[in-house]
Amino acid sequence: MFQMTLETEALIDRALAEDLSIGDPTTDILIPQELNGKASFVGKEKGVLAGLDVALAVFKRFDSSLLTEVHIRDGEHLRSGDLIATVSGRMNPMLKAERTALNFLRRMSGIASETSAYVREVDGFDATIVDTRKTTPGLRALEKYAVRIGGGYNHRQNLGDGILIKDNHIEALREMGMSLGDVVRKANSEKSHTINVEVEVEDLAQVEEALEAGAKILLLDNMGPEDMAIAVRMAEGRAVTEASGNITLQTVRAAAASGVDIISVGALTHSAKDLDISLDFAS
Amino acid sequence: MFQMTLETEALIDRALAEDLSIGDPTTDILIPQELNGKASFVGKEKGVLAGLDVALAVFKRFDSSLLTEVHIRDGEHLRSGDLIATVSGRMNPMLKAERTALNFLRRMSGIASETSAYVREVDGFDATIVDTRKTTPGLRALEKYAVRIGGGYNHRQNLGDGILIKDNHIEALREMGMSLGDVVRKANSEKSHTINVEVEVEDLAQVEEALEAGAKILLLDNMGPEDMAIAVRMAEGRAVTEASGNITLQTVRAAAASGVDIISVGALTHSAKDLDISLDFAS
Amino acid sequence: MFQMTLETEALIDRALAEDLSIGDPTTDILIPQELNGKASFVGKEKGVLAGLDVALAVFKRFDSSLLTEVHIRDGEHLRSGDLIATVSGRMNPMLKAERTALNFLRRMSGIASETSAYVREVDGFDATIVDTRKTTPGLRALEKYAVRIGGGYNHRQNLGDGILIKDNHIEALREMGMSLGDVVRKANSEKSHTINVEVEVEDLAQVEEALEAGAKILLLDNMGPEDMAIAVRMAEGRAVTEASGNITLQTVRAAAASGVDIISVGALTHSAKDLDISLDFAS
Amino acid sequence: MFQMTLETEALIDRALAEDLSIGDPTTDILIPQELNGKASFVGKEKGVLAGLDVALAVFKRFDSSLLTEVHIRDGEHLRSGDLIATVSGRMNPMLKAERTALNFLRRMSGIASETSAYVREVDGFDATIVDTRKTTPGLRALEKYAVRIGGGYNHRQNLGDGILIKDNHIEALREMGMSLGDVVRKANSEKSHTINVEVEVEDLAQVEEALEAGAKILLLDNMGPEDMAIAVRMAEGRAVTEASGNITLQTVRAAAASGVDIISVGALTHSAKDLDISLDFAS
Amino acid sequence: MFQMTLETEALIDRALAEDLSIGDPTTDILIPQELNGKASFVGKEKGVLAGLDVALAVFKRFDSSLLTEVHIRDGEHLRSGDLIATVSGRMNPMLKAERTALNFLRRMSGIASETSAYVREVDGFDATIVDTRKTTPGLRALEKYAVRIGGGYNHRQNLGDGILIKDNHIEALREMGMSLGDVVRKANSEKSHTINVEVEVEDLAQVEEALEAGAKILLLDNMGPEDMAIAVRMAEGRAVTEASGNITLQTVRAAAASGVDIISVGALTHSAKDLDISLDFAS
Amino acid sequence: MFQMTLETEALIDRALAEDLSIGDPTTDILIPQELNGKASFVGKEKGVLAGLDVALAVFKRFDSSLLTEVHIRDGEHLRSGDLIATVSGRMNPMLKAERTALNFLRRMSGIASETSAYVREVDGFDATIVDTRKTTPGLRALEKYAVRIGGGYNHRQNLGDGILIKDNHIEALREMGMSLGDVVRKANSEKSHTINVEVEVEDLAQVEEALEAGAKILLLDNMGPEDMAIAVRMAEGRAVTEASGNITLQTVRAAAASGVDIISVGALTHSAKDLDISLDFAS
Repeated sequence: MFQMTLETEALIDRALAEDLSIGDPTTDILIPQELNGKASFVGKEKGVLAGLDVALAVFKRFDSSLLTEVHIRDGEHLRSGDLIATVSGRMNPMLKAERTALNFLRRMSGIASETSAYVREVDGFDATIVDTRKTTPGLRALEKYAVRIGGGYNHRQNLGDGILIKDNHIEALREMGMSLGDVVRKANSEKSHTINVEVEVEDLAQVEEALEAGAKILLLDNMGPEDMAIAVRMAEGRAVTEASGNITLQTVRAAAASGVDIISVGALTHSAKDLDISLDFAS
Repeated sequence: MFQMTLETEALIDRALAEDLSIGDPTTDILIPQELNGKASFVGKEKGVLAGLDVALAVFKRFDSSLLTEVHIRDGEHLRSGDLIATVSGRMNPMLKAERTALNFLRRMSGIASETSAYVREVDGFDATIVDTRKTTPGLRALEKYAVRIGGGYNHRQNLGDGILIKDNHIEALREMGMSLGDVVRKANSEKSHTINVEVEVEDLAQVEEALEAGAKILLLDNMGPEDMAIAVRMAEGRAVTEASGNITLQTVRAAAASGVDIISVGALTHSAKDLDISLDFAS
Repeated sequence: MFQMTLETEALIDRALAEDLSIGDPTTDILIPQELNGKASFVGKEKGVLAGLDVALAVFKRFDSSLLTEVHIRDGEHLRSGDLIATVSGRMNPMLKAERTALNFLRRMSGIASETSAYVREVDGFDATIVDTRKTTPGLRALEKYAVRIGGGYNHRQNLGDGILIKDNHIEALREMGMSLGDVVRKANSEKSHTINVEVEVEDLAQVEEALEAGAKILLLDNMGPEDMAIAVRMAEGRAVTEASGNITLQTVRAAAASGVDIISVGALTHSAKDLDISLDFAS
Repeated sequence: MFQMTLETEALIDRALAEDLSIGDPTTDILIPQELNGKASFVGKEKGVLAGLDVALAVFKRFDSSLLTEVHIRDGEHLRSGDLIATVSGRMNPMLKAERTALNFLRRMSGIASETSAYVREVDGFDATIVDTRKTTPGLRALEKYAVRIGGGYNHRQNLGDGILIKDNHIEALREMGMSLGDVVRKANSEKSHTINVEVEVEDLAQVEEALEAGAKILLLDNMGPEDMAIAVRMAEGRAVTEASGNITLQTVRAAAASGVDIISVGALTHSAKDLDISLDFAS
Repeated sequence: MFQMTLETEALIDRALAEDLSIGDPTTDILIPQELNGKASFVGKEKGVLAGLDVALAVFKRFDSSLLTEVHIRDGEHLRSGDLIATVSGRMNPMLKAERTALNFLRRMSGIASETSAYVREVDGFDATIVDTRKTTPGLRALEKYAVRIGGGYNHRQNLGDGILIKDNHIEALREMGMSLGDVVRKANSEKSHTINVEVEVEDLAQVEEALEAGAKILLLDNMGPEDMAIAVRMAEGRAVTEASGNITLQTVRAAAASGVDIISVGALTHSAKDLDISLDFAS
Repeated sequence: MFQMTLETEALIDRALAEDLSIGDPTTDILIPQELNGKASFVGKEKGVLAGLDVALAVFKRFDSSLLTEVHIRDGEHLRSGDLIATVSGRMNPMLKAERTALNFLRRMSGIASETSAYVREVDGFDATIVDTRKTTPGLRALEKYAVRIGGGYNHRQNLGDGILIKDNHIEALREMGMSLGDVVRKANSEKSHTINVEVEVEDLAQVEEALEAGAKILLLDNMGPEDMAIAVRMAEGRAVTEASGNITLQTVRAAAASGVDIISVGALTHSAKDLDISLDFAS
């Protein structure tokens, strides 16, 4: 269940305003205020449901008298034709809020479904699938929730909940005469005790240098499966390993076979398509 | 050029806060405040650029002392390796704002590129490609701009700038004894004079009924190409025709060949993948 | 009934804050928190009621335990002395919210009453009375609602829900060598299919030019009644006609007699006086 | 000069959004982004100018590259045809912001002009004209500024910057056995030392009771001129006197002649008409 | 009872966001959503309770299903071990909101307790203890409420609800050739009739000059007790006297003994320590 | 240097509004808009400066034409009489923004000074002084910055950037049959790889259990110095140790002597007094 926050409520409000700021004359001209009816969310393709609480909250915020009934919950598998939930009450506000509710539900379910496909693909290996910070501006909390619903895990929520030294940091500091090991040691010495140092490495020499400097997590950037397997053995007992860099559904299984602990996949959020779900009305 | 509005600035602020609300210890520990450098936006695959002004605005809002230089503009075609723009000044804020800027630029360019592919596909026909209201919550203005940059046109921005009688409206009113023609006539008689009545029709009988009732735009929902061609002839001189309903890159050309004026494609916004663009630093 | 939106709630909140940001020491010193009572909205002059839901929402937002009872509804005619509605519960919050609630109700009722006077004045003619965008900053939705309650119709809510080519557009483009007809044709060719092109014309030559170029609505700016009557005949079957320009209660009937479809009156919103309504307390 | 605050900037932003939230297709289709020109604010009737800084700020916030030039300042008298100020630069944003800027300027100038008429009417007497809290929701600071520009003074900005015991307070407390004198004494004993106690009185007996209880300001509610003159003499050296209650341009001079110190006039803000001012473009 | 306002609700929301913007993984990993329990606010040292309504509102805003029960109310004295209130319902949200609720309650109770100590110290004298504008940015309303709960009174809430001519004003005007008396007279002649003129004076000569000029309140800045006593006698019947300037618990009684009406103490808000209160859970 | 964020700017805006929402009649009546002058921040007691950038930003946001000059920077030691910085330009806005600027600067400097005293006290030991989440609602980022300026380090910014299992979590889970070791293991198995597990322990048996379960940080809650010393030895090479629980300036050195790595002190933020700093004007 997605735990609604004040930020999510504000996002819903903005989404409704974006669609309705100058009214809905079609509905106001045609649909009498007192006409009652019922609308059903129905799946139109296979996938994993995510975001139902958000979609229903759109209706409730828009008209608190609407009633909702849930048949399928977040995390459950959908097939085409499945009845997901119903909304009942005044048709007029239901018709106005329909598109906004669907826009949330379809995107979040799309991400959960995409994540689920990656998780299935690495079945039998120890690797966990995690997301990245390549999320839609303003929707991070919703999208990271959808990843979890699809069976994935979250990498950093925010730049503040982990140290991740990326190539751009290393490059900038190399100009100042610092080696990769120096950089890791500096981060280790000044970081808060509650977070760990992860460092992006590109070859086995860097793996060794990072490990010696005390890195606790290695981000193996765009390494081949053989090198990854060697890096995993080098890091054993000393650091967690993460495969990263344009991982696709085609390549994820090979990455997992290398023995890495974690595989981060930007595509979970930056390239998932909406899952097709519709809202059908009957008065 | 995207015309920045106060709403877009607020969206940028929220996106930055989402990524940086508890700081960026990696950058603050490692990168001295006074270290200067330069970062380059570089294309990593073929597509159409969109959103550069927004991406650069992210940097400027975060640190107004950063300087930017533009090499390729919105609407131009990108190839892998193309230098798009540079940002120069203090490395510390540049590293903090990097991901937020990229998240905007990659998504908007993804939509423009997808739109461009549809537009190319209907080359030689009169049909224009238009978007839908299936946009990401909170990003509608940005996404509709990206559609225009890709060569598409915009359908309604908002429920208020057009009358579009959909199946759900018709269904609700049928229960009250109103025919499709009745519904169109009611809308025509009460609408503001500045907007037109469009109505969703599913077969040729409905086409006829809608035309007789005075509909000015027909949304031909999920009709086959032959029926669409007939509907187009029926509507000639009386109404604009719009093809709609799960149009894909595979089916769009056949739709255009039917002679419709407009083809609306939800996938432009709900299923476009990010275009791969990176930011490379040098100090 | 005014359909409350999140924007209206925020406006109410700001209005309350504007009046109460540093407290109400008069009420807090004098009126015990637990003292209960009842307050009655009473009409003090003739007019049309509008905004009662908003006024009552002010009380409910300020103290959700207050109870309200409605005797007269928006759109009904008021005479001096009429009991409109009552609020009952804790006197302390009622006294604090009184002025804010009245400020909304009196202004909205003033606009509805003014509109109603114009509508009565054109009785027997086909012309409808519409408003303009000359509304109070921040109150557009409320004021356009009040116009509808008074029997008027709304012109554009927003610059986006119609094309209206005004003298300032035409003037700017004339310098670039475009005729009025060119301007209308350009607008027709690029506009969204859901909205229509209206153009401001000042004499019969322009009427002809605009009609030939395909304008669907003519705004007859400050034309005399005879010219308007001719313009109406010229436009018949080709375009809707709208009379505009400093129309007053004294001149509106003559305008209607010319046969125009629409008469837009800025004074409905920019020059209506508050309707006198008071709130009487009894404990 | 109106001192811009963050609240006023936010109000301008909301007003612009209200008018432009879904764009201005008329201007965007017709007016090239690079076309430059000039627009002139011109008076269309006699009155007092107020709000020019706000109107110009609307343009500057919308497009900071626009240039402005001021010819007539707030507080100066306008005649029809007077050139007030010019805006120059890109025509496209100027045309978009025009209406919002005018809506501020015309309302504020209307209030200043109305106030000025009342001030002129009491010329030769000591009474000062003050406003009330009957202001437009959300515009109080602007409207109270316009009153000052018109030569009036401000009563309370907010419920917190004065004690004003009104009939509704007295009525509520009478039920609890408190006399008007008791009420005044209670307020005097608990108020902050920085603010004064004003009390609404309806007849000479109440005047006496209020004075004896230590009221520092008497609000003479709807009293006749003779009684007001007596009340003024009774209060001399003990309290300031304020005439109030449906004062009009017809009755204000008689009120002033009674010798009261202050005359509060709700109509300054609740019934002022917009002053007619237009914006004329030339490219 | 603290009367919740929309501003306070927004402050609570920001405080919750500040602590929870990227979630609470400790609680989400460990505490099942459905686990119920109860938490008790318990006093850990002697003092005066203030802010309980705010602390409970934190829980209710975060999860409206939580139930609260109050045992001790604002203004009552606390001893270590006292049970103040309980919250019951789902443990998960309770654990997340705990710190935010305590941060409000502890600070407000700290201020009330500090104020109470000053009030006790001047027992037997007529002087009232008042606060200053030296409050925490964003928390003024809460802190001024806590002062009242502790038995103190409030000086100005805002720069607008009183005239207070400080040394910096006098200094600036001296350069323009105005004497202290001139400054007081100018303020008296232009101020709103609802507020009084207070002036800061540093010696007896200034006391005399201010009184002659008609000051209604004298702020005796950093004067010795003897001079204060003389100033009090000089002001008798003409002005209220206020002692000010680094008053401490050690010096406040001597100040009161001088006969001043008011003693303003910045330390009530700028140097109060949190009162120790904890929240104890049991499931 | 404090890096200004949009959140801090919003906080400044709210603080200014809180003090100025209904204007500053004292300054507006007395100080001409064009009068120029200079104001100096001057230290009034010994301490460490923090927040100067924020205080100066208050002036710049309020009137961007004001000029500032810095003499002493954040982190430097202040003595009474030291000239910290000057602001020059129009006196009117300077006088209005004075109190808000000082309220920020004095509080932040108070926290830095308090932190500095603790850091000095543990001189010669390895322990670092860290803060807690016991910060003022809405001011966390500013207060945690002041701690760093005073020589301290930051514990969690937010509940999300670390796992800290507190007594209330353990207590809740004991009821469900989980031992402390079970709780630590569960947290370790589900946490993000970027953050560490810290657990609150109360005696040496719990220390052992937590270490065996894999806790990486031990919060030694209210332990005596001898037990802490033993716990430190037990944890050596396995976990970081943190002393916590009502640490004061009197007890902090003994805690450090036990060999703990970290000492967290709530009093840094919840009980620091403002540092006395004033703003002196000269025109």
